[in-house]
Amino acid sequence: MLIKGASLLRDGGLCQDMDIMIEAGHIVRIGERLKAEDDLVIDAKKMLAIPGLVNAHTHLAMTLFRGYADDMELMPWLQEKIWPLEARLKEEDIRWGVKLGCLEMIRMGITCYNDMYYFMDETARATKEMGLRAFLAGVIFDMRPEFLREAEPFIQRWKDDDLIRPTLGPHAIYTCSEETLIQVREIAKRHEVPVHIHLSETRREVDTFVNQRKMTPVEYMDSLDLLGPDLIAVHCIWLSPRDIGLLAKSKTTVVHTPVSNLKLASGIAPIDRLLHEGACVCLGTDGASSNNSLSIFQEMKTAAITQKNVWGPTTLMAEQVWRIATDNAYRAFGLNMGLREGAFADLVLIDLRRPWFWPATNMHSHLVYSMMGGVDTVIVNGRVLMRHGQIPGEEEIIERAQKQFLDLTSR
Amino acid sequence: MLIKGASLLRDGGLCQDMDIMIEAGHIVRIGERLKAEDDLVIDAKKMLAIPGLVNAHTHLAMTLFRGYADDMELMPWLQEKIWPLEARLKEEDIRWGVKLGCLEMIRMGITCYNDMYYFMDETARATKEMGLRAFLAGVIFDMRPEFLREAEPFIQRWKDDDLIRPTLGPHAIYTCSEETLIQVREIAKRHEVPVHIHLSETRREVDTFVNQRKMTPVEYMDSLDLLGPDLIAVHCIWLSPRDIGLLAKSKTTVVHTPVSNLKLASGIAPIDRLLHEGACVCLGTDGASSNNSLSIFQEMKTAAITQKNVWGPTTLMAEQVWRIATDNAYRAFGLNMGLREGAFADLVLIDLRRPWFWPATNMHSHLVYSMMGGVDTVIVNGRVLMRHGQIPGEEEIIERAQKQFLDLTSR
Repeated sequence: MLIKGASLLRDGGLCQDMDIMIEAGHIVRIGERLKAEDDLVIDAKKMLAIPGLVNAHTHLAMTLFRGYADDMELMPWLQEKIWPLEARLKEEDIRWGVKLGCLEMIRMGITCYNDMYYFMDETARATKEMGLRAFLAGVIFDMRPEFLREAEPFIQRWKDDDLIRPTLGPHAIYTCSEETLIQVREIAKRHEVPVHIHLSETRREVDTFVNQRKMTPVEYMDSLDLLGPDLIAVHCIWLSPRDIGLLAKSKTTVVHTPVSNLKLASGIAPIDRLLHEGACVCLGTDGASSNNSLSIFQEMKTAAITQKNVWGPTTLMAEQVWRIATDNAYRAFGLNMGLREGAFADLVLIDLRRPWFWPATNMHSHLVYSMMGGVDTVIVNGRVLMRHGQIPGEEEIIERAQKQFLDLTSR
Repeated sequence: MLIKGASLLRDGGLCQDMDIMIEAGHIVRIGERLKAEDDLVIDAKKMLAIPGLVNAHTHLAMTLFRGYADDMELMPWLQEKIWPLEARLKEEDIRWGVKLGCLEMIRMGITCYNDMYYFMDETARATKEMGLRAFLAGVIFDMRPEFLREAEPFIQRWKDDDLIRPTLGPHAIYTCSEETLIQVREIAKRHEVPVHIHLSETRREVDTFVNQRKMTPVEYMDSLDLLGPDLIAVHCIWLSPRDIGLLAKSKTTVVHTPVSNLKLASGIAPIDRLLHEGACVCLGTDGASSNNSLSIFQEMKTAAITQKNVWGPTTLMAEQVWRIATDNAYRAFGLNMGLREGAFADLVLIDLRRPWFWPATNMHSHLVYSMMGGVDTVIVNGRVLMRHGQIPGEEEIIERAQKQFLDLTSR
């Protein structure tokens, strides 16, 4: 496959009329006037090529709950709305929720996501059919001890897949005992897989823990030897200065989910401070039931402007936000990604003939602050998932998801 | 013109397969199975029809500065970047900046905007060519006394136009003397036009004023008899409880611009409190140089989630936000708008075959929290400005705007 005539971001400017050759799921050459070696040529004139975006935290099957319950306090929302639905979930619900979510992520230029939820084999199968990459963890908590027992076999089933990478998903420190977390750590070490956990999301969670244990949730994770590059710690809103130092020094991956955090009134994570201390920060959407979108573009802008409002207008400059959404995520998840030879052919073409990309001043600024659409083509592992805004089978997936939602809510 | 088979929002649900007949710039009938009386039939199957959105505060020509300067402190941004450009502005810059901004607003379903800037005759002409409605004020401040002298003739030139409504634009209380504001008030009364002003935007502005005058900016406006339904007060971030009461009781229009306020680190306006007291709140984007988008959908979501984070998750429910963006704006600007017989034919068709509108749970929630594109058709005053995402002349406008930006910055 040859992508012809694309614009690339290089050193803050645009490098025009570049060709990208793809073979066996990888970028094999980037240059000018390359010759096509097979039939598939994608005209990318007036298109910007970017490497795919990573959604570093979501619960994708919950896309099936989008709009089902909003504007509620956290506990009634969970107890009256979300948990009763989740108690009735079947594989078929997961299938169509995941596929509906994949449609939206493809449209937003996301080629890889990191998930924690139920029925992860079905999530993996549906994701592979859609063609995306994913890091998947079955959620683990003590109320359902079988979830921990199922974790290792899940890893064994999926560890050699080309698109799916199995991980471990202890839900949180208040739903998993110390013993569970230690077992998770041992499985993670044995299989060299990341651990994905919600950490320090609400003030109440942190206050309660500190009162009981005389240490913060982050200090607790440190005491269990769980901090480090293989920990994906999501939210991290209520941090002490010492917590910030621990997360940064240990190179723990911190996933910032600003839209969901605001919508649930959880607070604004101290991202400026974390970056200042050298932490690896990535961006995630959280589930569509608490966002209700799956767009890393929206998270980039929301992250930047909310941090500015707290720390001042020079905080989180556009190019830095772009790097957080791309390079930081690739590094954190060990993804061989970027627009360079040898990298995965996971890339996105954005139509620059949209008014929000003009005038041509600063493409990082346009991508972070102005982008309002124009994702034209999405390629993952060398496979074209969307071309000219068309995703094969989209209408059927939407219909099936709608049917499945009605089935779930009348069950 | 007949729009066939659209879905309409009615009492929180969707009313499907409805036809909308348009004649002489107005909606003349809404019903089922209407017969076309002329040739133009617009198929709206699987489309949601909404009345057009109003951008209640912008500086549209500044779209030409998009991405030119971001991530700076307010004063260096103005002094080093914005003011030097503005000092060199010519009519031709305004023309292409406005047209570029109109393209984006059409794509975002905005059919009417409220503006304050320079060269407003050119702004009016460019807007009319693009086909949008606008409330336009030449900015007034004491450093350029001729701007006040030009205000009344501008009103007289445009007061009978079908799309343009002239208004008065005193910039702010710290750039206009009391005498200027009193003259503005007298011209406004004489011609029955609204007054559009920036008010209580930064903490420094309010603190400085209170120190000097022993009253708040809102109290000062009250003392000058300027509060009321004909005042469009933009930002209103730093308000005392008494200010909130004054704005609400006087029925002053408060324009909330949450994205720009966050990006410039100005703060979060107490919208929940204003609404609680009965104030008329609308939404605006501010200029593309401080946002950098022109989307009321983005303002809706940002307004809702930032208020929730301050006041709790039940604040600004989706339907309420939708009403603020639509009904409040129509009332504040005296616009005969809405999907009802007799109203202006200013409406938008949104393609519901996008994943973010599914499952079909709560359309208000989807419009406020999930909407990520799909504006298909925009009609203003009975004229089709965009159909199937195509705006005639768009590519030329973008090219001309780019050329004009290069010309401006090399002048």
